[in-house]
Amino acid sequence: MKTIRRLDLDDARRLIAGASTHAEEIGVPMCIAVTDEAGQLIAFERMEGGKVTSTTIAIDKAFTAAAAKKATHEYGHASQPGAPVYGINSAIGGRLMVVGGGLPVIFDADVVGGIGISSGTPAQDQAVAEAAVAYWEKR
Amino acid sequence: MKTIRRLDLDDARRLIAGASTHAEEIGVPMCIAVTDEAGQLIAFERMEGGKVTSTTIAIDKAFTAAAAKKATHEYGHASQPGAPVYGINSAIGGRLMVVGGGLPVIFDADVVGGIGISSGTPAQDQAVAEAAVAYWEKR
Amino acid sequence: MKTIRRLDLDDARRLIAGASTHAEEIGVPMCIAVTDEAGQLIAFERMEGGKVTSTTIAIDKAFTAAAAKKATHEYGHASQPGAPVYGINSAIGGRLMVVGGGLPVIFDADVVGGIGISSGTPAQDQAVAEAAVAYWEKR
Amino acid sequence: MKTIRRLDLDDARRLIAGASTHAEEIGVPMCIAVTDEAGQLIAFERMEGGKVTSTTIAIDKAFTAAAAKKATHEYGHASQPGAPVYGINSAIGGRLMVVGGGLPVIFDADVVGGIGISSGTPAQDQAVAEAAVAYWEKR
Repeated sequence: MKTIRRLDLDDARRLIAGASTHAEEIGVPMCIAVTDEAGQLIAFERMEGGKVTSTTIAIDKAFTAAAAKKATHEYGHASQPGAPVYGINSAIGGRLMVVGGGLPVIFDADVVGGIGISSGTPAQDQAVAEAAVAYWEKR
Repeated sequence: MKTIRRLDLDDARRLIAGASTHAEEIGVPMCIAVTDEAGQLIAFERMEGGKVTSTTIAIDKAFTAAAAKKATHEYGHASQPGAPVYGINSAIGGRLMVVGGGLPVIFDADVVGGIGISSGTPAQDQAVAEAAVAYWEKR
Repeated sequence: MKTIRRLDLDDARRLIAGASTHAEEIGVPMCIAVTDEAGQLIAFERMEGGKVTSTTIAIDKAFTAAAAKKATHEYGHASQPGAPVYGINSAIGGRLMVVGGGLPVIFDADVVGGIGISSGTPAQDQAVAEAAVAYWEKR
Repeated sequence: MKTIRRLDLDDARRLIAGASTHAEEIGVPMCIAVTDEAGQLIAFERMEGGKVTSTTIAIDKAFTAAAAKKATHEYGHASQPGAPVYGINSAIGGRLMVVGGGLPVIFDADVVGGIGISSGTPAQDQAVAEAAVAYWEKR
């Protein structure tokens, strides 16, 4: 038997609040998903103007970041043609996201959850995810 | 060209708040999903203790209720052996939910969204969905 | 943030050993799957003569039992025609198993994982799952 | 009519033992899957710290290597842009893995099964798969 730590619903709401605030600052309405450390969805919001396609993409970015313990943009670099994990993007029924905007949420060196952002450019999505984690860390 | 009405994010949050309050009153932590009238997810929360399987089930109940403009428990009656839509439960890759807990959200005779609740008995899920809609209607 | 308990790999191996022993006693080779409390696979074995179809079925029984915190045979009763959750069997892409042989693994009133058995009759599958849990509890 | 040879459960356990030992030596906890020559899962273990996403990826690497009779890293080379099987990675619902770490298990020039490793870099995954096969060959 082992004991692990994971995000609770209050953490998820705080991450969404942090993401929404930054998304409003940069003027890009986003889909925002937060999962637990096993990649299972805790909370989701599609801001007014967020893209419908981005619903699934945000959820899968959060899933990937949490369950693979890796930021999705790192997979983006590592899966370019000729790079080591080329072709990984279609794994797990296409749920393995290699586009920036998914970050593991880390506490005391443990991955405790994931956040996934989608609707902007990957750089915007990643910036919003980073702002959300920074906001959550100040709790 | 036509104009439609649909729930916005504030409506979705209000529906989730109404559902959470009633779920706490009856002591059953729930997964709560709200979609727009096209069945696309607007917001989701898994309460502390809500079931992981109910994540997908709640989202699909809301999808079914909104996009089919019918409460999921009505499909439950209509899909019994010998009844008219027997077998419909496996349609759309299994997303067509016939278990109670999904309600269309109606405004001025128009379906403007859907709410899906899962983790309790179907009767509990349906009661929480009804309480959420009643709370939203008092806005 | 919250803390949860879950099965580790040693627990999973012990559950598989307990299941294999009982399966041999009754002379029915089984597929045996163990998941963590989030429904994610930890370990799996297909005994000599276990059915290929039962690979997925055993994994999905363990997933259902852990993630829904309910034995799959209970869903079997509750999902009969006319019963409350009729039609639930096709949910989550058909992963929601209502055939006996899936049990949540419980420690101190918390669900910490799930075990799923398949290849025999549902009664045999369930008996093997029960024997596995009983063996694990004596650890 | 014909007769084929395939791995049995003891072989699968021996391959997993060989993989685990090497994974511990290099300090990278892995997901380890072994299939028969038809690509059907025989046994699986997720080591403590193995990634949840790698559960499916390891199973699909073993499936690909056994059922296509080809190491997954060979598909990685052959599926680069402009190369002959470009785009094959999304085949079979995304189960065709082109990332290193899947090896056919060969006996007397016949493919008798497959092993798939995931959680490390593709080079680490492949090295662990090779160590597992070497350990099994010494049986």
